[in-house]
Amino acid sequence: MRKIRMGMVGGGDGAFIGAVHRIAAAMDSRVELVCGCFSGDPERALSSGQALGLETDRVYSDYHTMMGMEAALAADRRMDFVTIVTPNHLHLPVAKAAFEQGFHVLSDKPATLNLAEMKELMAVAESSGKLYGLTHTYLGYPMVQEARQRVERGELGTIRKLIVEYSQGWLAAADDPNNKQAAWRIDPRQAGESCCMADIGSHAFNLAEAISGLKVTELCADIGPLVPGRQLDDDGTAMLRFDNGARGVLIASQVSVGEENNLQIRIYGDRGGLQWQQEQPNSLKLMYNDQPAQIVRTGWSGTSEASCSLTRTPAGHPEGYLEAFANLYLQFAERIAAAEEGRPPAGLASSMPGLSDAYRGMAFIEAVVAASAGGDKWHSLKDHPGNTEA
Amino acid sequence: MRKIRMGMVGGGDGAFIGAVHRIAAAMDSRVELVCGCFSGDPERALSSGQALGLETDRVYSDYHTMMGMEAALAADRRMDFVTIVTPNHLHLPVAKAAFEQGFHVLSDKPATLNLAEMKELMAVAESSGKLYGLTHTYLGYPMVQEARQRVERGELGTIRKLIVEYSQGWLAAADDPNNKQAAWRIDPRQAGESCCMADIGSHAFNLAEAISGLKVTELCADIGPLVPGRQLDDDGTAMLRFDNGARGVLIASQVSVGEENNLQIRIYGDRGGLQWQQEQPNSLKLMYNDQPAQIVRTGWSGTSEASCSLTRTPAGHPEGYLEAFANLYLQFAERIAAAEEGRPPAGLASSMPGLSDAYRGMAFIEAVVAASAGGDKWHSLKDHPGNTEA
Amino acid sequence: MRKIRMGMVGGGDGAFIGAVHRIAAAMDSRVELVCGCFSGDPERALSSGQALGLETDRVYSDYHTMMGMEAALAADRRMDFVTIVTPNHLHLPVAKAAFEQGFHVLSDKPATLNLAEMKELMAVAESSGKLYGLTHTYLGYPMVQEARQRVERGELGTIRKLIVEYSQGWLAAADDPNNKQAAWRIDPRQAGESCCMADIGSHAFNLAEAISGLKVTELCADIGPLVPGRQLDDDGTAMLRFDNGARGVLIASQVSVGEENNLQIRIYGDRGGLQWQQEQPNSLKLMYNDQPAQIVRTGWSGTSEASCSLTRTPAGHPEGYLEAFANLYLQFAERIAAAEEGRPPAGLASSMPGLSDAYRGMAFIEAVVAASAGGDKWHSLKDHPGNTEA
Amino acid sequence: MRKIRMGMVGGGDGAFIGAVHRIAAAMDSRVELVCGCFSGDPERALSSGQALGLETDRVYSDYHTMMGMEAALAADRRMDFVTIVTPNHLHLPVAKAAFEQGFHVLSDKPATLNLAEMKELMAVAESSGKLYGLTHTYLGYPMVQEARQRVERGELGTIRKLIVEYSQGWLAAADDPNNKQAAWRIDPRQAGESCCMADIGSHAFNLAEAISGLKVTELCADIGPLVPGRQLDDDGTAMLRFDNGARGVLIASQVSVGEENNLQIRIYGDRGGLQWQQEQPNSLKLMYNDQPAQIVRTGWSGTSEASCSLTRTPAGHPEGYLEAFANLYLQFAERIAAAEEGRPPAGLASSMPGLSDAYRGMAFIEAVVAASAGGDKWHSLKDHPGNTEA
Repeated sequence: MRKIRMGMVGGGDGAFIGAVHRIAAAMDSRVELVCGCFSGDPERALSSGQALGLETDRVYSDYHTMMGMEAALAADRRMDFVTIVTPNHLHLPVAKAAFEQGFHVLSDKPATLNLAEMKELMAVAESSGKLYGLTHTYLGYPMVQEARQRVERGELGTIRKLIVEYSQGWLAAADDPNNKQAAWRIDPRQAGESCCMADIGSHAFNLAEAISGLKVTELCADIGPLVPGRQLDDDGTAMLRFDNGARGVLIASQVSVGEENNLQIRIYGDRGGLQWQQEQPNSLKLMYNDQPAQIVRTGWSGTSEASCSLTRTPAGHPEGYLEAFANLYLQFAERIAAAEEGRPPAGLASSMPGLSDAYRGMAFIEAVVAASAGGDKWHSLKDHPGNTEA
Repeated sequence: MRKIRMGMVGGGDGAFIGAVHRIAAAMDSRVELVCGCFSGDPERALSSGQALGLETDRVYSDYHTMMGMEAALAADRRMDFVTIVTPNHLHLPVAKAAFEQGFHVLSDKPATLNLAEMKELMAVAESSGKLYGLTHTYLGYPMVQEARQRVERGELGTIRKLIVEYSQGWLAAADDPNNKQAAWRIDPRQAGESCCMADIGSHAFNLAEAISGLKVTELCADIGPLVPGRQLDDDGTAMLRFDNGARGVLIASQVSVGEENNLQIRIYGDRGGLQWQQEQPNSLKLMYNDQPAQIVRTGWSGTSEASCSLTRTPAGHPEGYLEAFANLYLQFAERIAAAEEGRPPAGLASSMPGLSDAYRGMAFIEAVVAASAGGDKWHSLKDHPGNTEA
Repeated sequence: MRKIRMGMVGGGDGAFIGAVHRIAAAMDSRVELVCGCFSGDPERALSSGQALGLETDRVYSDYHTMMGMEAALAADRRMDFVTIVTPNHLHLPVAKAAFEQGFHVLSDKPATLNLAEMKELMAVAESSGKLYGLTHTYLGYPMVQEARQRVERGELGTIRKLIVEYSQGWLAAADDPNNKQAAWRIDPRQAGESCCMADIGSHAFNLAEAISGLKVTELCADIGPLVPGRQLDDDGTAMLRFDNGARGVLIASQVSVGEENNLQIRIYGDRGGLQWQQEQPNSLKLMYNDQPAQIVRTGWSGTSEASCSLTRTPAGHPEGYLEAFANLYLQFAERIAAAEEGRPPAGLASSMPGLSDAYRGMAFIEAVVAASAGGDKWHSLKDHPGNTEA
Repeated sequence: MRKIRMGMVGGGDGAFIGAVHRIAAAMDSRVELVCGCFSGDPERALSSGQALGLETDRVYSDYHTMMGMEAALAADRRMDFVTIVTPNHLHLPVAKAAFEQGFHVLSDKPATLNLAEMKELMAVAESSGKLYGLTHTYLGYPMVQEARQRVERGELGTIRKLIVEYSQGWLAAADDPNNKQAAWRIDPRQAGESCCMADIGSHAFNLAEAISGLKVTELCADIGPLVPGRQLDDDGTAMLRFDNGARGVLIASQVSVGEENNLQIRIYGDRGGLQWQQEQPNSLKLMYNDQPAQIVRTGWSGTSEASCSLTRTPAGHPEGYLEAFANLYLQFAERIAAAEEGRPPAGLASSMPGLSDAYRGMAFIEAVVAASAGGDKWHSLKDHPGNTEA
């Protein structure tokens, strides 16, 4: 089984998420970083590439050049896919450039700056015939997939109520221009129409739809900046209505002081409920009215083959965020290998987040911003225009 | 210190909350049950009274008779106050009858069937000159008062965000007419305009305002029945805006399968956050961005004199719901004793929930019902008409 | 159903455990405090009695007088039983005096100062024909009884391993002669041969035998003072061997800084395991190798009728230490009523701790002290001399 | 910074721990697997090597051949170190072969089959002048190092009491010869004198000494098989005495049904206590008598630079067992690089477990086996013969 070759755009020295992607890609020795455009600044690009042990001629400071040069390499040398870890406003242009040169694309979320861009991305992706994946990391957790499967099997009965929350506190202080992680997120030009909802609310939304198997049809929202002087939301709540009549609520915040990365979800059906919390990711609580609650644990008895396939260690040896992330890289590599070999992807690879999820995410961000700004109580959230998963 | 004498209306054989009130009243040997009207059915009233060891001539089957007969007893024999543990629709008439005969009133919540009744209650209470207390049990927990004091002292800084939730699952099944606890709550004639929001949402609302020291000024709500066939809400969410600009969300449900009595609150200021969960009531979590979280524990070092005054055992000997309830009885007894002795009540007794809280609660219920039914996004929640705490 | 009348010896102003006993006795309105000898100091005895609302002529300052005077009262007035809440060295003389005057005895633990005294107590109790109960409080918790029943039903299979721990930190500081709670416990004349093992190790031992249904046959111990200058142990460990071949360990400490009242037990059989922690008393964790763990909760579905009979509130309304204590008072009252009525006690009353448990506890204390002091590795722990439960 | 080149002995298809080592080594792209002897069976060795993408001529089926062939390669091609992931009985011979050919050695634990072998290893290692590392994985957790530093800084005061436990349940069933993971561990020829104490008790022992900074001087033990038919211990307890007078207890089990990988430690000093649990590895609880407990979290405020250097993600993005393991690989790589460059290792690399810890571990295993078998109560645990860390 050959290694899948990866090129990276973004993620130079000091960037948090680029390093995370590289660890996730390296962990299972299934993906190999072969080139990158880590910065638009040639010097920084080069020093980043060297620190990563890349050959100098495969470190680029312009992503167009990178796509062209790589496309010109021999098939057994050039990268197979591009992973995009830039600020949001570059997601679309980089993805387009990659698709146009025939590369698969794995992108950080949100997929684009806004819904209009998303439609453009969709068109380009579809006409390219190449694969598109979106790193909604949290879907890589075994217990998230365990939850998904149990809902799908009907263990909760008909879903009635869903509560999803993503609370962080790291943007609670007044803005410091030297905080690079913060600076681009609160700048409309780089982040788009939303900070908190785009950055983390979109993860919560994706998690809610992915586990429940339901679609949000309308929402009513109240989002905005709670730290004085900001242009974009740093906190917000949306009441949700789902396509089966269920109701829900989505809470997101980056100013909830003391919260680290508190993503959690609860889903209640007419037969049972479940709870998953990202900070304790290896436990899934199942709740019932007519029997004691159960604590399903990653890799322990009573878990599905699917969720077990996402683990690397025996139960009780905690796996975390990086392993979840690595699972998405394994899945994307498997999708590429399967495409090359003309076979369906194995395991859960076919269900990893792609264009549809990307579209839903952008539609959510647009809707939640509009719903909060507008005077109407409810705002509908339309499905994407076609059934077009690459 | 003489014992304070109590009469009870409601709470006959098999009623859950009546028994709870009696345990709470008896625990500290400060309050003595001397009479009661436990049922409108004379036979059931009598058997209930006898089981409680009351003298036969002080067991009544009509609360008007009870008020009259007790008023006619010698001052050192007759009851000092009436505790009301009936379904909601009787709260006002019983309270009126008691006030009119010169008795203090301690009432289960919600205070009345609706806001109009509340105004009537307020008028009667004020003209009587007697004391009124409302058993928002959860304010009796030491860690709730600890939280309140810490917010008041400014430990969290300026409050920005509040999340309060009260989730239960016991009404998740289709209605069974033999379930007496359920039957009256889902019947508009006995419960009023709301089931879930009146029954437990009002507790959550009270807790939020009491700990934060803020007032909700407007809300946007989505409530309703999730179990088919019901007339009243069994679940709902309200987005909240507070008088200092903070935002919040209140979630309540009686159909969240597997939830027992999951009341919890989190409050985030610009300096710190706090979390309290009723099912683990002896811990209060304090969260910060610039230091590790702290777990403040009932009766342990670092707690205020006020919260310590609400405990009966050393730290680590868990106190629970009944002790919290008993604290309200102690406080009401202290208010009565203090009034009798012409002195201010000691400790936290003066801050126990009374008419103002009762009014706020009824205003909340009215507002949340109206907000959910109406097309307007935001609905204002007016303060009560006077500053009239008895 | 008449109230059972109680007299108390010990528990004057400022005594912790006396107040706890009174709350426990009062809570359910089943037991009535009618007299007491709260202190050997007549003034303090009187002020204590008055604060409790007792008639002056039933407040005594000498327990012999109390037994004689009460015995001389009319049968429908005199106390039914004595509850003993003194330091350890008075347990035997007070109990003897009570038995000799024909009163039932409920005693705090440990039952006596040493095993020799215990044999004397046993003889007196047996010849009196009166009832004896020992307040091993923790057996009053619903989840402890739930655990006991599940073990008895064989749900864990054959027990192989048991870990029981009781850690506190309150004696970690150097001794302060003004700390009355501490002073008598570390004084051999008042406490006996052991501080920590007698005071809390004995609870742990009792819990282990009660839930497991097994008997410790031999132990190997290392106990002693960890705070310089003490004569008695404030910490210790014992390795245990049980009559069915199972092994175990008992850990107790009063100098584990930061620990409140951390009593916890785990039992592992060949089919399943269980865990109970006193500071979260309403949860019982059941663990399996071949299925997910279950969290059994007080009063929730899946609990036995027996454990439910020990609860006063619906699941999720936490009950705690005082309710557990009150359950022992209810059980002792029921044993008295049943004896009076010539019928077997209802519910779990017949299984409450009595003379056998008292004997086992004293035998444990003697054994653990001897085992630690001696050079032999293992020390046998003999069963009591007869099958003599009153 | 060049990548450090690794050869592996053991870890063929289906071996659990070999795969874990490879992930740990790959994660940070600091170590490169260049060769291996994955099995003594040539076919299995080859297929394992190919699956890992190794060149065929660097896949060996005899570790002696591997050492010789690699030593003959050019300095910039041959492996830098051997990682040993075989059953215990091969640890010494493979390490010897490696040292004799001039390679550094990283070994799984326990270091050897018994203490006699350990002395031999020590001699060989010392005369080779090469580095030796032992993968006591749990020392790679940030919160373990945080705990270690806080104890060292005196935050707990003088240590008095230590409780360490390592409970698993996976060996609770009667032996199945097809369970390869189990088979060698319970076979004295492959595992040595002990199963449970050697396999996991040694981890607990190492953790206790590493965090506390104390040395066990004597112990009293009771270990043995609880599953019928076994020759080696699958469970046991040891009471410990430390060089500063502190007391402790070590509990280990592989038959505690329902336990996954429950390694936990608590240490109590005269000023504070701490608790760390491997299954929730990112929290460290600090306990005090005179202030509320604190929850120190990986990467959050209030943590040391040292523990932060072991994390790859922001707080709240859980890191787990594989990251802890990877930290040991990073440290060993750093030690190799530093040796090559003639400088001291950076960060915590110099404190990673080495020969001294290996010796202590083997001395513990020998002592606990002897202590349990013998009639004497206490058994001394001698320090290693020299101060000889490579």
